[in-house]
Amino acid sequence: MTSFSETFRQELDQLMRWRRDVRHFRTDPIEDDLIDRCLATFNLAPSVGLSEPWRVVRLNSETARASALANYEHANTQALNGYSGDKAKIYANLKLSGMRDAPVQFAVFCDDETEKGAGLGAGTMPEMRRYSVVAAITQFWLSARAEGLGVGWVSILDPDRLCQDLNVPDQWSLVGYLCVGWPESDEQTPELERAGWENRNLSLPVVER
Amino acid sequence: MTSFSETFRQELDQLMRWRRDVRHFRTDPIEDDLIDRCLATFNLAPSVGLSEPWRVVRLNSETARASALANYEHANTQALNGYSGDKAKIYANLKLSGMRDAPVQFAVFCDDETEKGAGLGAGTMPEMRRYSVVAAITQFWLSARAEGLGVGWVSILDPDRLCQDLNVPDQWSLVGYLCVGWPESDEQTPELERAGWENRNLSLPVVER
Repeated sequence: MTSFSETFRQELDQLMRWRRDVRHFRTDPIEDDLIDRCLATFNLAPSVGLSEPWRVVRLNSETARASALANYEHANTQALNGYSGDKAKIYANLKLSGMRDAPVQFAVFCDDETEKGAGLGAGTMPEMRRYSVVAAITQFWLSARAEGLGVGWVSILDPDRLCQDLNVPDQWSLVGYLCVGWPESDEQTPELERAGWENRNLSLPVVER
Repeated sequence: MTSFSETFRQELDQLMRWRRDVRHFRTDPIEDDLIDRCLATFNLAPSVGLSEPWRVVRLNSETARASALANYEHANTQALNGYSGDKAKIYANLKLSGMRDAPVQFAVFCDDETEKGAGLGAGTMPEMRRYSVVAAITQFWLSARAEGLGVGWVSILDPDRLCQDLNVPDQWSLVGYLCVGWPESDEQTPELERAGWENRNLSLPVVER
């Protein structure tokens, strides 16, 4: 029986408190070894039927990055147009992606038709494959933060367009676009809360049945 | 700047290695304080636009549990019928849920129409709300394992039927059904691998663009 200490549990709690969505990055490069260590947590994530449906694309070329940035900027302008009044003012001032600065950027996909796992657990809920990818991203995020790295998850993107621009197989769907880098600052309070967009809940109501 | 030690990172890696999908539980009760501590990690999870769309239902009544178990058994029989030959033989012998024994069981939903967060980040990818719920479940899973508890995620269920049986609001969709309890044994190797269903990958191929 492997057990974990109270000290470890307290540090894990701190890790989850300090893990934030980061949009302000220094442009300093990250060593490949460090990125590889963080990526190794993908293979430790739970996946439905052991299907391991995560597919990771690293955007290195100027072309790939420019297409992703243009995609984000277009979607973000459209999103801004959907707000009015105070919300529009706050939205216009938010920095919602670190795509211009983050030294390492990944697009993470789900292979919706992988044969691995032979479909176990994904019959009535095929979305479980995508959920497995999210679990892997969450573990990556925590391990990156434990190394001092920041991660920002960008979802203001046209996913079909990104798949097309990156020329990925038809059966892959975008789950998340991740910016990774050294954060400009270290914040325990979410940026959206500091900007007055939304506040966190302090408790979790549990309904009983 | 809050930083984490090499010792902590090694323990975090161990935690991810020992976190398994558990289907064999002892029936011993779990103290409410302990469950509450694990559930507190939901509020530390990333959520799109700070929407915190997770909704947690704890199944305590015999009626609620019996309906969920019947739902699973029906879906599991149908799933078995989809396999033939060796796969069918292995499938028939797999224990895919601990619903008969786990002392604590949760159905976790996503409120797809929550107004919290004002839709930020979920315009082009509304599925981001469900992904936020998965991130919270992943954190809960890790924190439960750090306390020695096992968690099993059951996805062999008709989600619409479960929503109906538990009488949850129309705008809630099922993300995961979680069995929580003290594991009968502690295994670093996934049960599906031990049973010969599927093997884990040893590395993560990263595609470059």
